[in-house]
Amino acid sequence: MGSTWGNKFKVSIFGESHGHGIGAVIDGLPSGIDIDLERVQHELNRRAARGNPLATPRKEGDQIEVLSGIFNGKTTGAPLAGLIRNENTRSGDYAKTKDLMRPGHADYAANARYGGFQDYRGGGHFSGRLTAPLVFAGAIAKEILTAIRPELGIGSRIVSIGDVKDEPIRDWRVYKTLIKGFENPAFPLYHANLEDAMKQAIIAAVADEDSIGGLVEGFITGLEPGVGNPFFESIESRLSALLFSIPAVKGVTFGAGFEVVSLRGSQANDALRMNDGQIETATNYNGGINGGISNGMPIVFQVAFKPTPSIGKEQQTINLSERKDATLTIQGRHDPCIVVRAFPVVEATIAICMADFLL
Amino acid sequence: MGSTWGNKFKVSIFGESHGHGIGAVIDGLPSGIDIDLERVQHELNRRAARGNPLATPRKEGDQIEVLSGIFNGKTTGAPLAGLIRNENTRSGDYAKTKDLMRPGHADYAANARYGGFQDYRGGGHFSGRLTAPLVFAGAIAKEILTAIRPELGIGSRIVSIGDVKDEPIRDWRVYKTLIKGFENPAFPLYHANLEDAMKQAIIAAVADEDSIGGLVEGFITGLEPGVGNPFFESIESRLSALLFSIPAVKGVTFGAGFEVVSLRGSQANDALRMNDGQIETATNYNGGINGGISNGMPIVFQVAFKPTPSIGKEQQTINLSERKDATLTIQGRHDPCIVVRAFPVVEATIAICMADFLL
Amino acid sequence: MGSTWGNKFKVSIFGESHGHGIGAVIDGLPSGIDIDLERVQHELNRRAARGNPLATPRKEGDQIEVLSGIFNGKTTGAPLAGLIRNENTRSGDYAKTKDLMRPGHADYAANARYGGFQDYRGGGHFSGRLTAPLVFAGAIAKEILTAIRPELGIGSRIVSIGDVKDEPIRDWRVYKTLIKGFENPAFPLYHANLEDAMKQAIIAAVADEDSIGGLVEGFITGLEPGVGNPFFESIESRLSALLFSIPAVKGVTFGAGFEVVSLRGSQANDALRMNDGQIETATNYNGGINGGISNGMPIVFQVAFKPTPSIGKEQQTINLSERKDATLTIQGRHDPCIVVRAFPVVEATIAICMADFLL
Amino acid sequence: MGSTWGNKFKVSIFGESHGHGIGAVIDGLPSGIDIDLERVQHELNRRAARGNPLATPRKEGDQIEVLSGIFNGKTTGAPLAGLIRNENTRSGDYAKTKDLMRPGHADYAANARYGGFQDYRGGGHFSGRLTAPLVFAGAIAKEILTAIRPELGIGSRIVSIGDVKDEPIRDWRVYKTLIKGFENPAFPLYHANLEDAMKQAIIAAVADEDSIGGLVEGFITGLEPGVGNPFFESIESRLSALLFSIPAVKGVTFGAGFEVVSLRGSQANDALRMNDGQIETATNYNGGINGGISNGMPIVFQVAFKPTPSIGKEQQTINLSERKDATLTIQGRHDPCIVVRAFPVVEATIAICMADFLL
Repeated sequence: MGSTWGNKFKVSIFGESHGHGIGAVIDGLPSGIDIDLERVQHELNRRAARGNPLATPRKEGDQIEVLSGIFNGKTTGAPLAGLIRNENTRSGDYAKTKDLMRPGHADYAANARYGGFQDYRGGGHFSGRLTAPLVFAGAIAKEILTAIRPELGIGSRIVSIGDVKDEPIRDWRVYKTLIKGFENPAFPLYHANLEDAMKQAIIAAVADEDSIGGLVEGFITGLEPGVGNPFFESIESRLSALLFSIPAVKGVTFGAGFEVVSLRGSQANDALRMNDGQIETATNYNGGINGGISNGMPIVFQVAFKPTPSIGKEQQTINLSERKDATLTIQGRHDPCIVVRAFPVVEATIAICMADFLL
Repeated sequence: MGSTWGNKFKVSIFGESHGHGIGAVIDGLPSGIDIDLERVQHELNRRAARGNPLATPRKEGDQIEVLSGIFNGKTTGAPLAGLIRNENTRSGDYAKTKDLMRPGHADYAANARYGGFQDYRGGGHFSGRLTAPLVFAGAIAKEILTAIRPELGIGSRIVSIGDVKDEPIRDWRVYKTLIKGFENPAFPLYHANLEDAMKQAIIAAVADEDSIGGLVEGFITGLEPGVGNPFFESIESRLSALLFSIPAVKGVTFGAGFEVVSLRGSQANDALRMNDGQIETATNYNGGINGGISNGMPIVFQVAFKPTPSIGKEQQTINLSERKDATLTIQGRHDPCIVVRAFPVVEATIAICMADFLL
Repeated sequence: MGSTWGNKFKVSIFGESHGHGIGAVIDGLPSGIDIDLERVQHELNRRAARGNPLATPRKEGDQIEVLSGIFNGKTTGAPLAGLIRNENTRSGDYAKTKDLMRPGHADYAANARYGGFQDYRGGGHFSGRLTAPLVFAGAIAKEILTAIRPELGIGSRIVSIGDVKDEPIRDWRVYKTLIKGFENPAFPLYHANLEDAMKQAIIAAVADEDSIGGLVEGFITGLEPGVGNPFFESIESRLSALLFSIPAVKGVTFGAGFEVVSLRGSQANDALRMNDGQIETATNYNGGINGGISNGMPIVFQVAFKPTPSIGKEQQTINLSERKDATLTIQGRHDPCIVVRAFPVVEATIAICMADFLL
Repeated sequence: MGSTWGNKFKVSIFGESHGHGIGAVIDGLPSGIDIDLERVQHELNRRAARGNPLATPRKEGDQIEVLSGIFNGKTTGAPLAGLIRNENTRSGDYAKTKDLMRPGHADYAANARYGGFQDYRGGGHFSGRLTAPLVFAGAIAKEILTAIRPELGIGSRIVSIGDVKDEPIRDWRVYKTLIKGFENPAFPLYHANLEDAMKQAIIAAVADEDSIGGLVEGFITGLEPGVGNPFFESIESRLSALLFSIPAVKGVTFGAGFEVVSLRGSQANDALRMNDGQIETATNYNGGINGGISNGMPIVFQVAFKPTPSIGKEQQTINLSERKDATLTIQGRHDPCIVVRAFPVVEATIAICMADFLL
């Protein structure tokens, strides 16, 4: 349970890190929408971070095969299923350490949940690898949105890696510029000059056989006012549910986020005003959302990623079958900082969420 | 759309601030569970904050009438419907200012969403008053949980009001103590001596005809490992969706929250260890959740509340029908800091979420 | 569980026969739709069958109070809740016979389901009285459909009472006439001259302190082709799920129904043809639905109602607490043939189903 | 939309007749359940009717590949995805007749629904071939039920083919015998001697290049009382929704079905009685269900299948792009009577429905 989401754009993801394949089925698509499979594959390639020296050297082909739902290059309206075969899996790595619960991973919690029957190899269904089907679904959602909301922009930037922090953006007009693209699209920064420092922070963690977290900001431009619902189907509720689905996410804030607690109402209220016949707000502390519904300003939110739990350093843990303390050194290929691969996943969840609202 | 939630404990809330009544229907209850209606009413009274000098002087009776689903003091298994009649409403206050969009409120977004047909009086369905049905549903959920999980503890504390901040709690054992109760249950603090400073911060905002935000921490003790699901039905996804349903919430983090980005993996991983035959973690930076599933440690999360948008100070806004800039001074009875009434709502969402998982 | 339905037009019904009240909450309504509460009440009156000598003499006021969701006579877009207070309940009738399971009723099955904690008075939540909230929801759905699909017609006729049978209608053009109204709207018949014979069949059953079943045909005219979905969300799947929610329904067929098994494909295929520029079918054995989706012909289906289980005649049953055979004579006020009150309920389910598809 | 079903046993089916593959993803499975993939494949083989001279000569391998959710022969608790590659497809057959709407098929309705973008080859997503994923999901459900309800029996029999009819079974004890197996499992009959006459009826239809319908009865034995829910989640509502998902089904009745309208209440009520300490009913006109909930008697229902719409005979239809009358002769490989392959699909829907209720 838990792998199906959506009211109108229904996504069902499946697969395990070291099984036969991973994928997604999407139901609820309109018919007749052009799907550019090269763009879809490009989104998967962004997540795969192939050749990125800061990412895992595991070579993930992540080649998507669409099994159904597209005919003559367009959606049919029937469910669209996509399959990615797993390759380059070395299951042998995992059998010998299956009783050693990897700290920070789902191992122990999943063991309790599934009575030990879960596929433990590489985290199984809990693997970050399952974000590939999410990105696939997001890429399909983007194709739909391109057709039905061409003015909608979906973007993300890296705000911090460890203690290296970019500035908050308080002028919402900046997002209209950022949406056009970043100096380095593979490392999207408001201040591009921070790239080196951030990469050094990752390299420093690698040198310690450790990992490091970071902050991603997602944003949506060009969304008309009036999208969303009160309460359980608010933009915040729907989007946060998707964002917390991404492994390693531990926090989601909208607009000013936790800084909002220090503001006075007279500041945080985002005074309304007319500007050249258009309604806008002076500030955007509410992140483009009031009462769960868009107000026409950019939707802005931040997502906290914890350090990747797979590290080379020796860790204290338990041997579950022996119920004894133990030490664990995780071998193999790992991402020292998931943020450099996670921002396309954040964008994918935005696209899925918006498609669900706007279809 | 948006007022219905749940897989197993299904809640449907209804009502507007100045309509005939507000309430909730709950479907999916087990039969034969004792419901203590005095305890249920007590939860509503906690939210109503009657007599609290820091809260709105609007006298809300919030007397719940159970219409169905209870027979001879026990749940029947049929839907349980509860109704709270609205009293003490002065609709006349609102008609003359209906074109003036209250900044920070849902007014403008709702107008775009509903084409101006929403009940604008007192915010209508978007009113914070709709948290009363949430608290009612949470109170019923608590009764269920008391029966099926007597060892489960649900609590909350005020972490900050404006800039007055209590400490983060890094030793998870502290929650085992906090769950037993607070020195002042109406103002639950880890360090009770901060109460005065926090109240002064509110009083200072009132003096400026302004408002102020704050931070609430929710926690769950006694939850066994293995509760929750991966991805879209993770504890984080489900709980955050409920928390963001509460008006004024702009951020939700679990465990170390946004501080997690500065940690190394070797810290944030929460090393596992045996303690007297029990499995536990040394630290609890993950807030009791790995892979979306409980790991047996206390579930801990923080919720950021923005300053209440209704303030006495004059504000810049627009007159929507004239599409002109305007000023607005909100008259009437308002909460200067919703945090002092919101923590029981946070607890209610925990109870609803847990009932949905554990039924 | 089981009292909530709908994707876009979400209905949640509640109440017990002898509780404080019954009602429904509807979420997902568009805003700005005129609701004529007199027409809504009229639908409830049709079901209540007040003054109908063939129906139960129990005087049900069934006065609806709308608690929320309507403002200035129009839908607000927020949940619309309606409450009907129970009156004229004589709970004392039921306590003494609570261990005697009424054959044909839900008593024994509900007892197993709810462990004896269900409200047994008058069938509790299983009472036919719960069709009143269904009719209320259907009446609201009709108001919505009147606004968004003025050309849509929803109708029903009595096809048989016991062995007195009206003809099947094989020429689908007839429905275009029937939708305009029946000679006796309180007893809608294709051949009005059968009314006496049907009523005599009911009176004969009453004379034997027994009851009798019947067949209702529902139909929809003016529905464009292309409404519905394949598989689990076909018109047949969605509508049958609603129809089987009506107590006493034991069969649902579309088009030619069970006669279809005797037809050859060359007959049952409903040959397509052009008629004055319009696409139509020669026959309508498929009841206006192919592949779960409307084909532009009238939607036609039949619903079998069993005889009302409450009869005056002595019956064999068991005493559940004593686990012994027993006899039971049901006192009180009963409907000898529910068909005369059920056809408005069938129409209500059509309206709910169509609103869910067409919103 | 429409290809996803379930509350606890969630099925999502995908695929088109002539696409790359068809399949299903199942979410909500318990972990640790043995899955015998040979039995699963056997169920698919039953539907494929390989070598059955009365079925289509199209050779469907229908070899299932499980992509995820099984590890070491047991369910992991993660989504179980199954894929069947399409083989032996001759798409060229279809292109030239795509404008000729096949009467009785979904062609015209689907065209209206999807604006002509649906995959028209072989009916696309509307193909009877999509019952293979249903059977796959049902086979997995059977494995689950075998583990959690070993006493549960799921069966079906052919009641009629065209005008050749087997008897209704009025003594519910007979189902306890039938559940053990049929003389000819590939043609399950209460009276095995009717097989020849039924087959002759099919052969006669084939001789006329026509097709013929029939009636299947499904039954469940060993189900405890108390399973199901009132109203929208009644056994009848849930099961009928699944049954009407099967292409060609036009009617579903429970128990006495349409004959119930001619019965008196004193008959149809199924008098309760004690028998050797067990509670049972004398008759089973209600088909084992009261108020939507099982009463401990066998669940019995009948399903009407229309004649297969693909026939060799020349038919009147329209050319949709020219909007002109036309004639159509369908070439190719067709089933003259789908009943001989449909009964395993009926059993699959029972298993899916029961798994959803009983998990």
